[in-house]
Amino acid sequence: MNDIGVRDALPAGFVAAARTIAGAAGVIDDPAGMAPFAEDRRKRYPGRAALVLRPASTAEVSGLVALCAGAGVAIVPQGGNTGLVGGSTPDESGREAVLSLARMNRVIAVDPIDNTIAVEAGVILAEAQDAALAADRLFPLSLAAEGSCTIGGNLSTNAGGTQVLRYGNARDLVLGLEVVLADGRVLDLMRALRKDNTGYDLKQVFLGSEGTLGIITRAVLKLVPRPRETVTAWIGLDGPTAAVALLADLQGATGGQVTTFEYIPRSCLEQLLRLIEGHRDPLREPWPAYALLEATSGRSQGLRGTVEAALGEAMEKGLVRDATIAESEAQAGALWRIREELPEGEKRAGAAVKHDVSVPVSRIPDFFEGAEGAVARAFPGARVSAFGHIGDGNIHFNVLPPHAPDTDRFLARWDEVNRVVEDVAIGLGGSFSAEHGIGRMRQASFERYKKPLEIELMRRLKTAFDPHGILNPGRVVARP
Amino acid sequence: MNDIGVRDALPAGFVAAARTIAGAAGVIDDPAGMAPFAEDRRKRYPGRAALVLRPASTAEVSGLVALCAGAGVAIVPQGGNTGLVGGSTPDESGREAVLSLARMNRVIAVDPIDNTIAVEAGVILAEAQDAALAADRLFPLSLAAEGSCTIGGNLSTNAGGTQVLRYGNARDLVLGLEVVLADGRVLDLMRALRKDNTGYDLKQVFLGSEGTLGIITRAVLKLVPRPRETVTAWIGLDGPTAAVALLADLQGATGGQVTTFEYIPRSCLEQLLRLIEGHRDPLREPWPAYALLEATSGRSQGLRGTVEAALGEAMEKGLVRDATIAESEAQAGALWRIREELPEGEKRAGAAVKHDVSVPVSRIPDFFEGAEGAVARAFPGARVSAFGHIGDGNIHFNVLPPHAPDTDRFLARWDEVNRVVEDVAIGLGGSFSAEHGIGRMRQASFERYKKPLEIELMRRLKTAFDPHGILNPGRVVARP
Repeated sequence: MNDIGVRDALPAGFVAAARTIAGAAGVIDDPAGMAPFAEDRRKRYPGRAALVLRPASTAEVSGLVALCAGAGVAIVPQGGNTGLVGGSTPDESGREAVLSLARMNRVIAVDPIDNTIAVEAGVILAEAQDAALAADRLFPLSLAAEGSCTIGGNLSTNAGGTQVLRYGNARDLVLGLEVVLADGRVLDLMRALRKDNTGYDLKQVFLGSEGTLGIITRAVLKLVPRPRETVTAWIGLDGPTAAVALLADLQGATGGQVTTFEYIPRSCLEQLLRLIEGHRDPLREPWPAYALLEATSGRSQGLRGTVEAALGEAMEKGLVRDATIAESEAQAGALWRIREELPEGEKRAGAAVKHDVSVPVSRIPDFFEGAEGAVARAFPGARVSAFGHIGDGNIHFNVLPPHAPDTDRFLARWDEVNRVVEDVAIGLGGSFSAEHGIGRMRQASFERYKKPLEIELMRRLKTAFDPHGILNPGRVVARP
Repeated sequence: MNDIGVRDALPAGFVAAARTIAGAAGVIDDPAGMAPFAEDRRKRYPGRAALVLRPASTAEVSGLVALCAGAGVAIVPQGGNTGLVGGSTPDESGREAVLSLARMNRVIAVDPIDNTIAVEAGVILAEAQDAALAADRLFPLSLAAEGSCTIGGNLSTNAGGTQVLRYGNARDLVLGLEVVLADGRVLDLMRALRKDNTGYDLKQVFLGSEGTLGIITRAVLKLVPRPRETVTAWIGLDGPTAAVALLADLQGATGGQVTTFEYIPRSCLEQLLRLIEGHRDPLREPWPAYALLEATSGRSQGLRGTVEAALGEAMEKGLVRDATIAESEAQAGALWRIREELPEGEKRAGAAVKHDVSVPVSRIPDFFEGAEGAVARAFPGARVSAFGHIGDGNIHFNVLPPHAPDTDRFLARWDEVNRVVEDVAIGLGGSFSAEHGIGRMRQASFERYKKPLEIELMRRLKTAFDPHGILNPGRVVARP
């Protein structure tokens, strides 16, 4: 059933042609069925799809993209639709087709000797993690949405998360890639090689390009040894300066075995304790801030002793006020749940203006001081809730209105707040989008902070790989 | 002094204009002074430079590139000139200018909290390593030419080496980059961020592009904690199947702390013992093959015990025949010297047809069997000397003539031998150039093995970033 909007947006015979390629299950054109594909996770960008395409194979993606290219229909690629910047849903025009990779959800192969996993783009991250564990290996990408985000989305947004410190961003975990190009041709780079210097590394062009240069359909990903010993600790400290110094000490002592080092100010913990049941303060006394530490090693290497000794020395130096090391998986789980539920605690505390900034790790203390000061000056009384992946210099610096009733008025100043906070990060050599990408939410910041030459070169890439602007148009970089 | 060739090749006033930009020390135009810059390391590609440019700053590089672009003079960027594929020296035409980065050799900064080192492109790799050590950190790129190769060359060729297994290729070690574009403009991406998803990752375009898309002038590189414990072992085994299985066991036991795992067949060791003084067989009895293992950890983690236990178990399983663990740095040094002098031993054994292939790690046994068989069939009596970075699937598979006097006749069949060996690697999902790149030596293989669509997309990149073909023309990919 085509409604009038669809009839307007798509050329005659388009839906039938799409069904010929992808079958009845591969095309959704009724408004109710399409609606969920048009709603972004944060519900900030109400959109309407011309059509939803759900191919089940690379050949179907190829056929559908060629069909869209021929008809000049723009495509918005979509994975788990968990992105936070509005990059995977259609705009309000009703002229963009969503191409969901969700049905391409097959784990193709796990090879414990190559230390690789080959997957289709629609495989959910947690399923890739499970498949790796079943082969006694670890797929080390880990982030809040892992139960519903997909590998294709992870790769096309260069996802980060809580283990970047040890294992890198999504880009760093890719050995091979298959991409459907803007004209529908299939670029097969599905190699499983650790070294391959045979010309330009084309896969790098597509990783992190948010579906604007090609559609990732399959990938070969790196696995690492499954850790045998895990040490999880909750550490009380005075603030970001101590946190940064402590991390350097812990990395030196363990030889780089820290997988996670998350920073949580006291205010975030208190908010959680107040608003969500089932949590308790892991330490007896309150401290200004905390770090959640995880380190892992192979077997029988005394990692716990190393961490304990390093924490002891740090306590003598005054970097650590108090600390507790989990004695069981259950205790470690309770510590992790605090970190994982911080966003939910924050949500219950009221809507906030969000930031996903990063700075060089050594500038984190300056960033906290600078950003808190700037917010206090520009928005007197506004509350800051800032936590994050401090080992990556990545802070989710969120700003709430002075009082809950002011929320709507405060949120209306979203861009103004962004600018105040992002200016501080940029001034310290930082980034206005550490791991969430550009999508539509960071377009204004993109135009403001990226140098004209960078934007010019990105446009050249867009023109070289998607000359007719078929793929996710207007996201990341507008056409020249 | 301009000789006639230079006068032919360069427009009137060009040399004077270059001197205005880079000073007298920045321009060499006498034939004797230019000669060393025109000779490739393997002396396979006798060339002649129109001019040698030696800028001392990014501004000078920028000015010189703009000058060349305006005059249509092609530029061959050059670092330490240690490349093995003829990618950094001019052709015979006498029309190409060499642009050497050797004078840009400043370590700009080392930051032990950010875990970064910022360098100019002409810094010698060993000097970057030393600067990191002075700050109690490790810069983990390590390769045979480290005493004379430069960071700019390492990055533009995506260098590999002996620690890729643990720390990745050169590409993986880069946080920030400065590049002079083909029109002379300076692209400043000198960031020190662990996470930065703000549009296309432009630096990836230039890394590994062999100076054909831009000239790398500065970089911010990752450092890692300096290891506190190092275990070095020499392991006797039956062949590649045992080596691959043993590596998987060691990675599992140590949680991925293996930094180096080099494979050396008995024949290579014997050649070394015969031809170079000062070496001895580390084990009492001969074994068909050996692995040189290095693993490192933080402090007091009992790494040696872990490795010993894993080797003991592997011995029970029959994967290991005998092994010795170095008891001192001197002993470890002696083991490493065997690996480091293998190429020299091979050189003394006579000229060989070289290969730098890779396959997925699990296919290494198949590769050895397949390639040795194919060589025996195609070139009866030819001798194989194959060693390499087995943890990366990277084998330097070198083929010598049956008898030394046949050498010239055999070397004349270089391309034929290449094809036989590379066909086997490609058939196993491998690569014909794992770490050395394309340059001029692998052009024929590039045309033979890369898919037409890959070559087409690489040409689009070349056109987008160097539309007039000024930078290292004809290397990697020819213009459309």
